[in-house]
Amino acid sequence: MPTTVSAMTTAGPNKPFGRGTIERRDPKPHDVVIDIAYAGICHSDIHQARDEWGEGNYPMVPGHEIAGTVSAVGDQVSRYAVGDRVGVGCFVDSCRECVNCLAGEEQYCLAGEVQTYNSQHYDGEPTYGGYSTQIVVDENYVLGIPAGVGLDVAAPLLCAGITLYSPLHHWNAGPGKKVAIVGMGGLGHMGVKIAKAMGAEVTVLSRTLAKQEDGKRLGADAYYATSDPSTFDELAGHFDLIVNTVAAQIPVDAYLSLLGLDGSMVNVGVPEGALEYHGFSLVAGRRSLAGSKIGGIRETQEMLDFCAEHGLGADIETISCDDVDAAWERVVQGDVRYRFVIDTTSFS
Amino acid sequence: MPTTVSAMTTAGPNKPFGRGTIERRDPKPHDVVIDIAYAGICHSDIHQARDEWGEGNYPMVPGHEIAGTVSAVGDQVSRYAVGDRVGVGCFVDSCRECVNCLAGEEQYCLAGEVQTYNSQHYDGEPTYGGYSTQIVVDENYVLGIPAGVGLDVAAPLLCAGITLYSPLHHWNAGPGKKVAIVGMGGLGHMGVKIAKAMGAEVTVLSRTLAKQEDGKRLGADAYYATSDPSTFDELAGHFDLIVNTVAAQIPVDAYLSLLGLDGSMVNVGVPEGALEYHGFSLVAGRRSLAGSKIGGIRETQEMLDFCAEHGLGADIETISCDDVDAAWERVVQGDVRYRFVIDTTSFS
Repeated sequence: MPTTVSAMTTAGPNKPFGRGTIERRDPKPHDVVIDIAYAGICHSDIHQARDEWGEGNYPMVPGHEIAGTVSAVGDQVSRYAVGDRVGVGCFVDSCRECVNCLAGEEQYCLAGEVQTYNSQHYDGEPTYGGYSTQIVVDENYVLGIPAGVGLDVAAPLLCAGITLYSPLHHWNAGPGKKVAIVGMGGLGHMGVKIAKAMGAEVTVLSRTLAKQEDGKRLGADAYYATSDPSTFDELAGHFDLIVNTVAAQIPVDAYLSLLGLDGSMVNVGVPEGALEYHGFSLVAGRRSLAGSKIGGIRETQEMLDFCAEHGLGADIETISCDDVDAAWERVVQGDVRYRFVIDTTSFS
Repeated sequence: MPTTVSAMTTAGPNKPFGRGTIERRDPKPHDVVIDIAYAGICHSDIHQARDEWGEGNYPMVPGHEIAGTVSAVGDQVSRYAVGDRVGVGCFVDSCRECVNCLAGEEQYCLAGEVQTYNSQHYDGEPTYGGYSTQIVVDENYVLGIPAGVGLDVAAPLLCAGITLYSPLHHWNAGPGKKVAIVGMGGLGHMGVKIAKAMGAEVTVLSRTLAKQEDGKRLGADAYYATSDPSTFDELAGHFDLIVNTVAAQIPVDAYLSLLGLDGSMVNVGVPEGALEYHGFSLVAGRRSLAGSKIGGIRETQEMLDFCAEHGLGADIETISCDDVDAAWERVVQGDVRYRFVIDTTSFS
């Protein structure tokens, strides 16, 4: 018999959230039942619930930054036990057979990984996310949250953390490397922390200097306003790696001009519409323009272990489940430092 | 006293070539005097002489694919001796002090490398290229042409060869890698030969199948027409590396869709105007879009040695210096398989 659990649900693109219930499946042999403690609010939750990406299924329960505790396991589960502190990120299954899954890069599953919410399991059952009190997930898609990282500050690592860790790691951020993080929001603030912990020289490129003090506190060596044209003169050719967290139209050539020889600009967001660049911006200095999408399960675990080792978590503002609508408005305004997390004890 | 030598000169953007003379400087201590045997015709010669890039200086003597024999050396030259078979490529000097020069990547010299023609030495003297009987070049910018490679088929290696070798090498073309060469012209035909010699699986993507037989003969494992939309379905996600030799507008997203996980598309030409892409094309599969420009001196020598080892040279059609105008028309029509080289004995 499925279990009925509490969840914050929205009935359509312009509908407010309300307390409701959803059903979670009975644990299958490899399933882990997780009592959710905290769920982060990601800007993509808003895009999906408001149907801005055109693929909204309702009722919707968003949330793919999930941290909690194992409360039951299926009879063949070997990775986790009751009481373990665990997390779930952006996907809860993948085909496990394609070349990308076999390479441990399930986020690029050729069959399409199963998103944690607003998606369907391969058997057609809808998926519901972390704005809820419980979730049931196959153990192979569950992450262990190391001791020393609070579940609240760990939750946003499951999306914001891995989205920045993966490109920083893949493009070799580290000692001697000059790294720019574009955008000082939920993603960007984790980029600063992680790049610094990796040993890179870290510069924040933000529209204004409003969050400069925070940036420096989190580890940035420098902080520049992109609204000031002199920034682009001063930093011309400076960086080895730019990770762009801004999912909006940007002047691509201007940003590419900040890269030195063999530099890469990696975009982790996807703006609406096409972007423009001039071929010379890439040929000059053998530059690359790339993209990156969250990370695979193995790398997500590696990121959590890295964060534990370096004492990293997200900067959060904890809210009640009844405050989701208000929090979303503040996310849209950019008024959060730097991630909202829903405390699921507020359901009871 | 400078030496007066024969050259094919053009007096302006729409003027025909005529036999003329230019002066070559007396060899300085580190200079090598080269009796030119062959000079390749590169499409960029045409762009520059016709002032299509807006920076034409006249009279102009094009030519940056130069092969010949050392006829004299300055008194401090240590690298070459009279009688050596040598080549000169796209540049004849660079600042030697910037980070890129010090890294042996002089083609990305931050002060601007001195182009072999239509440029100026740092002392202000104009540079004249290889459509000539002699050139004087600092030994550090002269390449050795290994025994076993004819000077005629070696000349085009100095631009077309290194322009393809460098990205293929930098992006690790080799056994187990699936490489596409876009465009089957002077650059592309060298890309097929070099990628095959590196051990990669090589596919040509050409507008039509007109040169398919040549492509297979040069080593291509497969050959597809990009004018056939089914090509893009059939090869979706197939390649590790695409080297695009076509300096024209292309549907970037369609080509990116041919890349597998972590695949890169490297452009070695620069079309006029901006190109468009959608962010999702990069984020899906962690793809990269990059550029590459010829190669440094060290790498160019490495390329020549590689070509000698594998018995590679350009497929050429040898012409007299008086046939430059006619040859250029054929280059513009795409009617050359695959590189014209001027035999400079035709001057006498």
